[in-house]
Amino acid sequence: MEIRAAVAGDEDSVWAILKPVIRAGETYALPVEMTRADALDYWLARGHRVFVAIEGGAMVGTYYLRANQSGGGAHVANCGYMVAQGFEGRGVARAMCEHSLKVARAAGFRAMQFNFVVSANTRAVDLWRRLGFAIAGRLPRAFRHPELGYIEALVMFRSLEDDPATGRNL
Amino acid sequence: MEIRAAVAGDEDSVWAILKPVIRAGETYALPVEMTRADALDYWLARGHRVFVAIEGGAMVGTYYLRANQSGGGAHVANCGYMVAQGFEGRGVARAMCEHSLKVARAAGFRAMQFNFVVSANTRAVDLWRRLGFAIAGRLPRAFRHPELGYIEALVMFRSLEDDPATGRNL
Repeated sequence: MEIRAAVAGDEDSVWAILKPVIRAGETYALPVEMTRADALDYWLARGHRVFVAIEGGAMVGTYYLRANQSGGGAHVANCGYMVAQGFEGRGVARAMCEHSLKVARAAGFRAMQFNFVVSANTRAVDLWRRLGFAIAGRLPRAFRHPELGYIEALVMFRSLEDDPATGRNL
Repeated sequence: MEIRAAVAGDEDSVWAILKPVIRAGETYALPVEMTRADALDYWLARGHRVFVAIEGGAMVGTYYLRANQSGGGAHVANCGYMVAQGFEGRGVARAMCEHSLKVARAAGFRAMQFNFVVSANTRAVDLWRRLGFAIAGRLPRAFRHPELGYIEALVMFRSLEDDPATGRNL
């Protein structure tokens, strides 16, 4: 799998990944009927660094990285990841998250935060935990799942600073 | 104290409130050198309902209310409040927050969330707690305070739904 920066011309493939995730409405707090233009404006927003994962010539995932806050909060990164339909469970999200942790650290970020992880998305929650993220917050009934109704969303957080004991982090 | 919707012409007075708060860099994760235009774009953004508090003919505070997320998260409100320099400690923030809880509830929001309360801003943290907000998350070292260095930021959350025991909430 190759992970590279998104370039002009990637829009169709990125939208092909975003569309079913947005339409399902199960993992991202985005309008399920969001248009292609609005979705691409959101994903490829100014201030986002966007990457795509390529395998066998196909785009199998995409993620963005940005500062989660500005000013005194600009040292904490935030990312969103989406895996292409039919390519779930093959390590694409893991590869993208590991890539993003390295990119974030190289860019000088000192931590990474996910603001809104839907609790029912247990595959993601478990993966982020294995990749060193802790549940830093629990937002009761903050997400309206199309089938499960009002369920908890999680704030997840991971330092990117060296562990003083081992000198290692990533 | 009167709290009313902001109208065209309020920009100078709103900026007079925002400017010292932003320049201090102690409570909001915004660039301390943010320009007037950028600050007003941020505060008066599309999707924000903005209110101002007036006392004795002077604008003593302002707040915005918005949906914190879209799609499946659009039922949770978010607000930002700022009190005019020299008017702290006179109940302006309390009055604005109480007003915002009523406005949010009337607009159909089911909860309110503050994403980034600087832990050193103890006056705010204590006030939000007294107004029914709980600390839902703790973000370690997520805010770089100009004097205190890297300190914790808090996620605070409050339901707006009726308590089934009492039938009351606000």
